[in-house]
Amino acid sequence: MAKEGKSIVLSAYCDSGYPGPEHFTIETVPVDDLADGGLLVQALVMSADPYLRASVKSNSGKPLGTPMSGFIAGKVLESKNAAWKAGDLFGASLPFTTVQVVTADQLSKTVSWKLSEFITEDQISLGIGVLGMPGVTAYAGLVDVLRPNEGETLFVSAASGAVGSLVGQIGKHVYKLKTIASAGGPKKCALCKDAFGYDEAIDYKTASNTAELTALLKAAAPDGIDMYFENVGSMHFEAALAALRAKGRIAVCGSISAYSDAAPQPCAIHPGQLIYKLQRIEGFMCAPWLGDPKGKALRAMAAWWKEGKLKVQETDYHGVERWPEAFNALFTGANVGKVVVHVA
Amino acid sequence: MAKEGKSIVLSAYCDSGYPGPEHFTIETVPVDDLADGGLLVQALVMSADPYLRASVKSNSGKPLGTPMSGFIAGKVLESKNAAWKAGDLFGASLPFTTVQVVTADQLSKTVSWKLSEFITEDQISLGIGVLGMPGVTAYAGLVDVLRPNEGETLFVSAASGAVGSLVGQIGKHVYKLKTIASAGGPKKCALCKDAFGYDEAIDYKTASNTAELTALLKAAAPDGIDMYFENVGSMHFEAALAALRAKGRIAVCGSISAYSDAAPQPCAIHPGQLIYKLQRIEGFMCAPWLGDPKGKALRAMAAWWKEGKLKVQETDYHGVERWPEAFNALFTGANVGKVVVHVA
Repeated sequence: MAKEGKSIVLSAYCDSGYPGPEHFTIETVPVDDLADGGLLVQALVMSADPYLRASVKSNSGKPLGTPMSGFIAGKVLESKNAAWKAGDLFGASLPFTTVQVVTADQLSKTVSWKLSEFITEDQISLGIGVLGMPGVTAYAGLVDVLRPNEGETLFVSAASGAVGSLVGQIGKHVYKLKTIASAGGPKKCALCKDAFGYDEAIDYKTASNTAELTALLKAAAPDGIDMYFENVGSMHFEAALAALRAKGRIAVCGSISAYSDAAPQPCAIHPGQLIYKLQRIEGFMCAPWLGDPKGKALRAMAAWWKEGKLKVQETDYHGVERWPEAFNALFTGANVGKVVVHVA
Repeated sequence: MAKEGKSIVLSAYCDSGYPGPEHFTIETVPVDDLADGGLLVQALVMSADPYLRASVKSNSGKPLGTPMSGFIAGKVLESKNAAWKAGDLFGASLPFTTVQVVTADQLSKTVSWKLSEFITEDQISLGIGVLGMPGVTAYAGLVDVLRPNEGETLFVSAASGAVGSLVGQIGKHVYKLKTIASAGGPKKCALCKDAFGYDEAIDYKTASNTAELTALLKAAAPDGIDMYFENVGSMHFEAALAALRAKGRIAVCGSISAYSDAAPQPCAIHPGQLIYKLQRIEGFMCAPWLGDPKGKALRAMAAWWKEGKLKVQETDYHGVERWPEAFNALFTGANVGKVVVHVA
């Protein structure tokens, strides 16, 4: 059994612009002894997600020289905890270290979930996608925050990404919505329509300001939109507000356009609009759904995936050393679907 | 029985600045015959509310020469409708006409409610206040949109007004909240604390921009606010966002600072703030609560008023001719509490 692992360590802060290989080092670390209540685990895949951008800033409180943490999926190698056994597949938020001991205390404070019930080891990448944080996030935002009604119109930004691609498919295939994607470039737009079933796809790169993006959105949805799943911010937020119908809802999940700005520009809003249109804007995070002991969101996602309602697209990287490059791709737009770093 | 009434008629549009006597005429109008299913009613009080500002704009769709409509309370003089009898006290949204026939068709399309169960004729002004639109609006926004938890901090703008004064008192005396008022000038601020029980009162006229108002708000609520009942817009909205704690909610009820601007400035918002703070911004109107056949909001307001939890302050005008002046006072800040025009 491996007595050492490899960690992705933050080596330099990045306050503006895009983080990449120059901000991380890969370090070999010893594996602690396994004590009662703990687990020895092997990461099989590590996730690269936009929310991690905040950890790389100098105001994050994260000391240089410490491992990055985020979502991983893997296998229990050895268990001294009654809830887990060797061979169990899991998803969890943990340090980005290939082989590590998770203590009882750590386990009680982190979010983790079992995957063996749903998938086999060769499908482990789903544990950081449709059966992990992105899947549960898509469920939480669409089902519980936006609360769709059949026939309504849903607009999704970053629509070919890990979360957006699932939001669109749940919207289309489960809730029978009209779905409108925003994505960057013709290739991603085609993917949104062909693979993810979006009815319309807007290439936001052809719009240089809010008015132009609003015009594209109104052309795709002449009667306006009922719901907006917000992953981007900036002109996307303003265009969605401009096209939002009465009783419209915006679920704010991400704001990637602002993550790499040291001083992002605010969006413009007329609060009075919300009154007569009875509109709601609500931010959310997936933590309460991921931590739900009944696993409502995870079970629903697993069922829809098994029914063939959710197609999964991945951009794969092989080797823990490539995680910084994978992370960078989220911001440059080089990725499609879920970014997966295979580290077994 | 009177065979003619007096109407408040829109005679000139007002697209910017404050509407006043120069925009209205008072006209004598004949009373229609009473047909089956209808009512002959006498208005006893007419309301002047900020939301009526929209009717006075040239883009309102309201033709010049037609009567203003809004909330009135009064008495049924004669009934040909089984649901009502002569002498019943009512509240309703109707034309501002002192004596009028309400047809069966009109009655089916307007919101109206019975007041005789709660008050006597000498208390009729409550039918356009605590037991009318402002009371039901205060209930809807605080109880059902903001959903308070005991011990939380509530910020209310236009806090000495018809709605705000009730929101603060429900918050303080029913939900045991810490309540913070914003009002214009020392007299209104004193009233907020002395009559309406606010814990703190901010004189927004001493702040000339968002940063200054935010500083006043943070001084009054050093740990931030959990809820904001929005009546004003502009720097109030931005200051509330700046002070809003995790899981904070904003109920958007009004935006009076923008009503008299031909092209109001938008507010600034960083949508990303809402994510990690799990915040919600929601617009609402009282119509669904006013139209609720069970009268949940009205019954609760009546009970709290009877228990002495809600003090009522009115600014009274006598004579239908004075309605334009009363309406103007809403925008100049000359009113305190509920503006009531007695027209019997």
